[in-house]
Amino acid sequence: MTSHALGLDFGTGSCRALIVDVRDGAELALGVADYAHGVDGVVTDPADRELARQVPADWRAASLAAIRTALAGAAEQGVAASSIVGIGVDATASTPLALAADLTPLADDPRFAHVPEALAWLWKDHTAQREAEAITAALRAHAPLALERCGGSYSAEWFWSKALAAARRAPELIASCAGFVELCDHVPAWLCGVRHPRGLVRSLGAAGHKAAYVAELGGLPSRAVLAALAREHAPAAVDAFVGLRADEDAVFAAVDRRAGGLSAAIARATGLVPDTAVAVGGIDAHLGAVGAGVREGDLVKVLGTSACDLAIVRGARAPSAAGLSGVVPDSIVPGAFGVEAGQAAFGDAFAWAARLGGAKSHADFEAEALRTAPGSSGLLALEWLNGNRCVLADPGLCGAILGLDLHTRPSEIWRAMVEAACFGARVIVERAIANGVPVARVIVCGGIARKSGFVVQTLADVLGREVVVAESSETSALGAAIAGAVAAGRHPDVPAAQAAMCRPPRRTHVPQPRAAATLDRLYGLYRKLHDAFGGVRTEALGSVMKDLRAIRAGCELGEKRTHAV
Amino acid sequence: MTSHALGLDFGTGSCRALIVDVRDGAELALGVADYAHGVDGVVTDPADRELARQVPADWRAASLAAIRTALAGAAEQGVAASSIVGIGVDATASTPLALAADLTPLADDPRFAHVPEALAWLWKDHTAQREAEAITAALRAHAPLALERCGGSYSAEWFWSKALAAARRAPELIASCAGFVELCDHVPAWLCGVRHPRGLVRSLGAAGHKAAYVAELGGLPSRAVLAALAREHAPAAVDAFVGLRADEDAVFAAVDRRAGGLSAAIARATGLVPDTAVAVGGIDAHLGAVGAGVREGDLVKVLGTSACDLAIVRGARAPSAAGLSGVVPDSIVPGAFGVEAGQAAFGDAFAWAARLGGAKSHADFEAEALRTAPGSSGLLALEWLNGNRCVLADPGLCGAILGLDLHTRPSEIWRAMVEAACFGARVIVERAIANGVPVARVIVCGGIARKSGFVVQTLADVLGREVVVAESSETSALGAAIAGAVAAGRHPDVPAAQAAMCRPPRRTHVPQPRAAATLDRLYGLYRKLHDAFGGVRTEALGSVMKDLRAIRAGCELGEKRTHAV
Repeated sequence: MTSHALGLDFGTGSCRALIVDVRDGAELALGVADYAHGVDGVVTDPADRELARQVPADWRAASLAAIRTALAGAAEQGVAASSIVGIGVDATASTPLALAADLTPLADDPRFAHVPEALAWLWKDHTAQREAEAITAALRAHAPLALERCGGSYSAEWFWSKALAAARRAPELIASCAGFVELCDHVPAWLCGVRHPRGLVRSLGAAGHKAAYVAELGGLPSRAVLAALAREHAPAAVDAFVGLRADEDAVFAAVDRRAGGLSAAIARATGLVPDTAVAVGGIDAHLGAVGAGVREGDLVKVLGTSACDLAIVRGARAPSAAGLSGVVPDSIVPGAFGVEAGQAAFGDAFAWAARLGGAKSHADFEAEALRTAPGSSGLLALEWLNGNRCVLADPGLCGAILGLDLHTRPSEIWRAMVEAACFGARVIVERAIANGVPVARVIVCGGIARKSGFVVQTLADVLGREVVVAESSETSALGAAIAGAVAAGRHPDVPAAQAAMCRPPRRTHVPQPRAAATLDRLYGLYRKLHDAFGGVRTEALGSVMKDLRAIRAGCELGEKRTHAV
Repeated sequence: MTSHALGLDFGTGSCRALIVDVRDGAELALGVADYAHGVDGVVTDPADRELARQVPADWRAASLAAIRTALAGAAEQGVAASSIVGIGVDATASTPLALAADLTPLADDPRFAHVPEALAWLWKDHTAQREAEAITAALRAHAPLALERCGGSYSAEWFWSKALAAARRAPELIASCAGFVELCDHVPAWLCGVRHPRGLVRSLGAAGHKAAYVAELGGLPSRAVLAALAREHAPAAVDAFVGLRADEDAVFAAVDRRAGGLSAAIARATGLVPDTAVAVGGIDAHLGAVGAGVREGDLVKVLGTSACDLAIVRGARAPSAAGLSGVVPDSIVPGAFGVEAGQAAFGDAFAWAARLGGAKSHADFEAEALRTAPGSSGLLALEWLNGNRCVLADPGLCGAILGLDLHTRPSEIWRAMVEAACFGARVIVERAIANGVPVARVIVCGGIARKSGFVVQTLADVLGREVVVAESSETSALGAAIAGAVAAGRHPDVPAAQAAMCRPPRRTHVPQPRAAATLDRLYGLYRKLHDAFGGVRTEALGSVMKDLRAIRAGCELGEKRTHAV
């Protein structure tokens, strides 16, 4: 009789439930359910463009619906819910929320119905910029190793920035809160029916990458550092803020560990077997890398609205995290250093351009892009429409387009944004290699990798190296299922489970020499703009527009030649 | 019995015929007819974005139709065609075309039906960039005064660039051509039935501003300079190219002079009286300034697809033309130096943004712009979508937008382009004043001035000075009618005719202190980008995006305050 694992993936707009054969990774059934509130699941505020929140009840409803759909799909293939032996969970991060003493979200409490800080702070919420700067300064002074591990700059997207902003704006919320935890910590506890903070097992990866957790320094930032920050920035909630550290109650573990057994209530609601092993949760991108089959020497890029770069490095010595998002032991694959970097806008950057031009989907513009050569529009963009996460780590930067003329079409702006997103990826690859992260192979996964051959080919052309597309369409959910299978004891560890459950790449994109040569010239100009506007150095920019015209003229010549032949 | 003058205005997309009372400038009737060919009258080439041509037959058909419509309108008011005593002509420039020995366009000759060089080279045709650079170098070496008069750089939009490009690409055309002349020279000759080059009277203003005509240097560039240019760039047409100088045949005169009398054929075709005085032609923008009532101390801005800045300076000493388009004696109002400057894209820049965003008209976005404050989008643009005419005189520059985020809307890009167009206008005003051109009053006219209170208000806010809107909706045609009235002897000179025929401004826009303060901060950032990308100097740009965010944050604060009050 076969055994299966269930991967539960909490994305930005929906929850996905994937049922996978633990022997060979065959994907049996998928259930998907969107979140009910907000725009595509995200609650926004017209008065504050930086705000992005989620309604916790949406996760519960969507995950139950997704599980039921997946189980129904499995049943159609003669596979019973009882064959599911392990459950893994991954989620966007840092997406923390305030919990009551019984670990239910305070967002469910009518007292906080109109307090936006009681909603979950979605990863892309940027309202805590001021707090991020204060935390960066505090870590620099008191915990330099923690700052170094997270790339030299603590982000407004991360746990403590959001916790401190919540404490400043809603001290009464934080005072009522028994835990401020990541979504990927909340879900396993909810699935297992944990009702007390002491039962909560937190994700080591999320803590290490988002909450400045450093084992050598005693875990999370010290009470003294937190108290100093609160006295300055949330004086009405100093004790409550320091209390979020949870001290001896807080248990951290990697994704290969069991968080608990499925509760009877959830089992009843879904048809799963009570006490099924539930793994410790992980960050969606991290488990995406696991599902993509990451090994040392691979750089996995999860290409979605944003891009997340992941790698693992074995050995005793950690690579430098300078300019990257973080280097944390055991965070992606237990037993190796997990390296994370990323771009705050990837697909979002060209989705913006598609919306601007009234396109219904990327496909509208992709077909046109496939008929033309890079450089032929004369455009060059900076994709920082959501700030710059790596390597400048500056959320105050913004997007730009250069080279416009009266004939510039929306489709050309779309293409320029695709190219810029790939240039930004190249900046990260070059930095990772310089920092000591080996990059022999680039694996892409996520929605964009699956849907757009054009984007992946452009990435291969810009990087000047082969890019392979992961076989699974649901690498995060597959990675979560792998964690579930390991937690259930069906594989000894994550690498063994990957070897069994990850399949060979779906396809390989090889750089096209001519396009790569043009994109290399454009990348030189991109670097000039990157360094000038990023404040890295003062650049002479008087030739940039001329160079763009010269590249365009070269393309026209090339096209005319093609016609003449 | 009243007398009337007819002004004929050949714009980029249509011909307009305006019948005006010579006593008081009352506008009796207007006829408008579009050109039949191309996109909005402009023949383009998908393979060469720089090409913009016109079909000469379109001008003839459109002008006859426009005259008939205007006369019909006058007749309805009891005014007979016989009351028209003078005709003036203005046209886009430099828009030259090749003529046969009988002064008919070679474009009409079936031998040249498929030769694009036989079409008229519309002012905004930019295919002769290489030739412009060669001519600039030749003038610098051999006729520095001519180069100085045209601002230090000879443009690809101007007469000799286009003539040389035509000679290079179609030597057989230039060899068959008895004259390569401006549209504003061609039309009066056609109206008067002139059939021989010796009868052609050319516009002093067009020659001075577009063909490097300098009286002190013997008129047009010397045969030696032209021969050297042709040997290098059009070796197959050296003699023919030099022959375009026309030497002793060429007669140049200002717009207050009579070019001839209306031919019997045109009189028959329209109902006008044979031998009616036809004035020497002028550049549309110049006669627009005349129709707007330009006096010393005024800067007239003709705001259309592009912007043209015009002023007159009396006295013996010419102001410097450095960074402007030209300073030419007698070119706008006979007896004064005519000063011209301009922006290659003005309305075109924000029309592009409107198209990009799928707006049907500017009004769609203007209503939204009126509800928000400048700076609130966080955007900053460079309006160089058609290159930069002044003060950088660099057609190789291109447009840019900075400050994009994932929420940026098309309407915000539209507004940023409006602001950028006004910032570009301020650069010119500052340069004109520095060059010794007095600017006490700014008068705007043209389509944008008439239609968009928002654009004119933004201009007033950016310039920090009052901007008045000319009364007439048809200042160019009115200026042409004024020239016709003077050529017919109904007024002694242009200033006297202006005093009688130009009416007080339609409305005045006063700077709004708060908007002006924000726009002043944005202008400081615009100048940084302008100087950096224009190659004026190397600028540290690391703070520009932050400054844009800070300005935006200030706006949000202001808006919140407003809500709270």
